[in-house]
Amino acid sequence: MANVSIREVGPRDGLQNEDPVPASDKVRLLDALSRTGVRRIEAVSFVHPRAIPQMADADEVWAAATKAPGVRYSALVPNSRGARRALAAGFTEIEVVVSASDTHNRKNLNRSTAESLEDISALIDEVHRAGGTVEVIVATSFGCPYEGDVDPRRVATIVDRVLADGADRVAFGDTTGMATPRRVTELLGVVSRKAPILLHFHNTRGTGLANILTALELGISEFDASIGGLGGCPYAPGASGNVATEEVVHMLHDMGVETGIDLDALLEAAELAERIVGRTLPSGVLRAGPRTRLVAAS
Amino acid sequence: MANVSIREVGPRDGLQNEDPVPASDKVRLLDALSRTGVRRIEAVSFVHPRAIPQMADADEVWAAATKAPGVRYSALVPNSRGARRALAAGFTEIEVVVSASDTHNRKNLNRSTAESLEDISALIDEVHRAGGTVEVIVATSFGCPYEGDVDPRRVATIVDRVLADGADRVAFGDTTGMATPRRVTELLGVVSRKAPILLHFHNTRGTGLANILTALELGISEFDASIGGLGGCPYAPGASGNVATEEVVHMLHDMGVETGIDLDALLEAAELAERIVGRTLPSGVLRAGPRTRLVAAS
Repeated sequence: MANVSIREVGPRDGLQNEDPVPASDKVRLLDALSRTGVRRIEAVSFVHPRAIPQMADADEVWAAATKAPGVRYSALVPNSRGARRALAAGFTEIEVVVSASDTHNRKNLNRSTAESLEDISALIDEVHRAGGTVEVIVATSFGCPYEGDVDPRRVATIVDRVLADGADRVAFGDTTGMATPRRVTELLGVVSRKAPILLHFHNTRGTGLANILTALELGISEFDASIGGLGGCPYAPGASGNVATEEVVHMLHDMGVETGIDLDALLEAAELAERIVGRTLPSGVLRAGPRTRLVAAS
Repeated sequence: MANVSIREVGPRDGLQNEDPVPASDKVRLLDALSRTGVRRIEAVSFVHPRAIPQMADADEVWAAATKAPGVRYSALVPNSRGARRALAAGFTEIEVVVSASDTHNRKNLNRSTAESLEDISALIDEVHRAGGTVEVIVATSFGCPYEGDVDPRRVATIVDRVLADGADRVAFGDTTGMATPRRVTELLGVVSRKAPILLHFHNTRGTGLANILTALELGISEFDASIGGLGGCPYAPGASGNVATEEVVHMLHDMGVETGIDLDALLEAAELAERIVGRTLPSGVLRAGPRTRLVAAS
């Protein structure tokens, strides 16, 4: 394994699960991340401001952010209306989400999984006509906080459907940190690999890097991660959310896996993220420094 | 892999790196842990009270603690004097530590690694004559906070020496959380497996469970873990120390690996540990609950 592609999701997924912060801080964070060498950033989401007030200023943030050459920026949308806004703002990489578990889909999107899949089919067509690409994120792929275990075959069926409908990429979301090495192995054993696959892990129960290690061994090379571990778990106050980008990069670089990311620049961005949200973030590498940072002996 | 043996080190390694707590609380924690089904507990250390005031009451704690049938209790000692105290208190499983890196050994034990190895040779003989067994813990096996990377061949040489001197078991200490899957693989590739091997990981940089997963795949089945993740990192204020027992058990049980431990009882002990030290411990499974704990949908 020579190369892993990390998508930084702190500006969107991270900040969406924190108390709202000013647009100017979001721009500063995006710009700091764009300077780290990371090649993909999930920048904003275009959602209804009543549903997610943290992202109400997506247009303003994106207009002000530096678009670094060599960085692919993507936007998450809940539906075709959001996709149109994202396309109008200049995004060509669109992400849309559907939950593998019906209960979670209803909670999140107020419709059944089957209804969301119908919507996504139309959305893919519309985005393709506008020259964009669509990644379908299958949330609760490793378990649902309401329903418990999710049968990997159910996830596989959803993947087959969205690929048949033209999805360009598929991501599997560990929405509330229920993924474990066992669940990763089971899921990757049954889902189609006809399109690129990206895995999105949380570190809610400490398994984040173990899951990534398992997926690496199974040939996966695209992962989401969030600067500093930004973003909590909405179902468990005080619990960690997304796996921290610097922890992922730290482990990968030690293994000789390249990411293109400068860990020092990443740690500066993590410190900025902490200042922006005003709380200590859960990243261990941010707290303790990389293993190569030595202590004076005297 | 059907079975893993976890040694709970919270009462010793954990509490030694926290502010001092009363002997009665230590006894309560030991007794709670003895009821979890865990089969091994590192109970106390017999060290000079000026060096480690947290363990000054080891005799009192051990005398008052319930000795559960089916649980193997061990004591850590820095030298032969400590070993004699441990044997006199009724321990038969003695642990002694030496650092693979000279700088850390001098900081920790005020002598060179070579001098410690001489002392350990004599200690092993003395403990064996008294009917006990000795585990030699090789600290800084995965890196030294002062010297950086530690050559695995240096660790292997130390292991060969202590096995030649009669050590009954060997443990490898990830003293400041510098272990990574790569370092685990490299070390296990060169050290002797003539005696039982135990691995002691920290989660300082998020790699705790990834390291355990790597070691499992390489045939290791004995691990240290600390209730709640008790015990910090002395070199990085606020950073995590030992990997949390409930996170290890949670991942292993999900994989179908048996530990003999009741996770619910373990979480009760973790809550007790939090009350005793009066701070939020870093365990994700303690914070968020096991992945099997569902949220009401309505």
